[in-house]
Amino acid sequence: MSQLRKAMLCLLSALAILVSSRGLRGQDDPLPSWNNSKPKQKIVQFVEQTTTAGSPTFVEPAERIAVFDNDGTLWCEKPYYFQLEFMLEQVRAAVLKHPEWKNDAAYKAIVARDAKALEAIGMKPVLQLVAKANSGMLVSQYDKAIRDWLATARHPRFERPYTDLVYAPMQELLAYLRANGFRTYIVSGGSVEFMRPWAEKAYGIPPEQVIGTQQEVRYELKNGRPSLVRGPSFAFVNDGPGKPIGIYRSLGRLPIAAFGNSDGDLQMFQMTAAGQGPRLVLVIHHDDETREYAYDRGSRVGGLDKAWDEALEKGWIVVSMKNDWAKVFGFDK
Amino acid sequence: MSQLRKAMLCLLSALAILVSSRGLRGQDDPLPSWNNSKPKQKIVQFVEQTTTAGSPTFVEPAERIAVFDNDGTLWCEKPYYFQLEFMLEQVRAAVLKHPEWKNDAAYKAIVARDAKALEAIGMKPVLQLVAKANSGMLVSQYDKAIRDWLATARHPRFERPYTDLVYAPMQELLAYLRANGFRTYIVSGGSVEFMRPWAEKAYGIPPEQVIGTQQEVRYELKNGRPSLVRGPSFAFVNDGPGKPIGIYRSLGRLPIAAFGNSDGDLQMFQMTAAGQGPRLVLVIHHDDETREYAYDRGSRVGGLDKAWDEALEKGWIVVSMKNDWAKVFGFDK
Repeated sequence: MSQLRKAMLCLLSALAILVSSRGLRGQDDPLPSWNNSKPKQKIVQFVEQTTTAGSPTFVEPAERIAVFDNDGTLWCEKPYYFQLEFMLEQVRAAVLKHPEWKNDAAYKAIVARDAKALEAIGMKPVLQLVAKANSGMLVSQYDKAIRDWLATARHPRFERPYTDLVYAPMQELLAYLRANGFRTYIVSGGSVEFMRPWAEKAYGIPPEQVIGTQQEVRYELKNGRPSLVRGPSFAFVNDGPGKPIGIYRSLGRLPIAAFGNSDGDLQMFQMTAAGQGPRLVLVIHHDDETREYAYDRGSRVGGLDKAWDEALEKGWIVVSMKNDWAKVFGFDK
Repeated sequence: MSQLRKAMLCLLSALAILVSSRGLRGQDDPLPSWNNSKPKQKIVQFVEQTTTAGSPTFVEPAERIAVFDNDGTLWCEKPYYFQLEFMLEQVRAAVLKHPEWKNDAAYKAIVARDAKALEAIGMKPVLQLVAKANSGMLVSQYDKAIRDWLATARHPRFERPYTDLVYAPMQELLAYLRANGFRTYIVSGGSVEFMRPWAEKAYGIPPEQVIGTQQEVRYELKNGRPSLVRGPSFAFVNDGPGKPIGIYRSLGRLPIAAFGNSDGDLQMFQMTAAGQGPRLVLVIHHDDETREYAYDRGSRVGGLDKAWDEALEKGWIVVSMKNDWAKVFGFDK
């Protein structure tokens, strides 16, 4: 009976934790960083619709899948994608092996930290440079390089670790959805390796729930030791039309809720909205230059044009960071 | 307090179910279809090692990942991979659009149901034919075609639905591992689409825990409706050295237990065994032609050569279906 005793003790302690934590918070608002405006009301309404047993809009827990873009949706993406800062270090270190880069526009923009030039060049040529920079590296070495960088790098405006720049309202939303039986996934154009080392601590999202751009990787025995080695190119770019494909490949089912902030999320929004039953599509609009940044149409990083038009046309929820969020970052007063 | 009440009721009912089901089974053997020989003892020992709190070999639940090959490990793969039978129907229907196939060796072998020729040709040319056959199909149509086929097709020897030909000992093992906090994944050379429709019912493995060979898929708006359309080629072949890569891409962490039956699993075995801490690598040996089939070295379907040698050399567990399994299929007496 020791297995049974263990299981009972485990359940009872889970119950005790639940009671005490609920007791402490009482009827506290699960989304305190959200103002009580339309987006929050719609979120709460959606969760009630999909989780109330016996309701015609009830959704089985297995199908309660919520997908979140990362850059600009869960954390800040300005002055440019944080992954680019990491790449700077990697590319700088690799230029000795690649003298031909000295005339490359993307390389020059990275080394000069020329945000304007990087915006004009776009993400792809830069990602290609870094892909080459890290070609031949073990995935374990790459993982360590990311962790080392995160431990010391600081954001140029906020002068804090990049992982401090996650949005408090979105952290609350992730936790609120999970508390209601949803599973939360990141679906990002960024590299999956770049997010996995910190996504669990920042968002409560484990590595296997991070869907992203994939590097070519090959399997090798190095001195008899099984190793995964990074190749020079991408195996799959999980952006724009790649997002519904990445979701299909990883999950084999459709999400019922999607959260994003740019045209790179449009096809993920469309695919999510097209399913049967209740759906939640929510677009974060960056309109708060005091607490964060203001950008939308025409921005090369996080541009919001077509997805905004379609959101207005189809009644998807557009969140004004300025008006709908009481707080942006955890460190905001 | 209604949220709290709901959570408490949910926990209490889970507890009640647990108590009653344990009560009914008492100290029953969780692996009744396994004889009490070395493989079963090793499995139970591994589970105790990794789940006993305070033990130096304890593994956190998040890291308790077990990966299972499908064909020949979880269900039968003879006279040839069941997916080929499904392909037969698909390819036959598509030959009208592809008259050039009439001289293709793989096409001729499929139509003639020539098992020997198919073994000689191998899986890849046949998979390529079917990939072309279904090119342009919506993924939802393909899913329906698989479900329709499964509902009517019968195995030539056992004259039963293919989904009856799952191995009872492995179903028990999957359930036993999950009851001990493991997460169970399929990692197969077969197409992910072919397994997802029935893996949950047969094995308790949901679609997002099926890792397999991936078709090229493109995103399209068809009359304004978001659609995923199958392309003519593979995006990723999850076999041999592809298996550790597929695991890395999907999970971002190493399994601690791996189950397979052929050389296509060798690199997955190697990668699993290479990690720190307790590891379980188990190779199913098909040596029971009375209840199932007997094959190993030199077989084109499910050949077991190098992986067998390495299993013996490294002390991985080799399961004799004949001696270590009390039962093969659920319908065996």
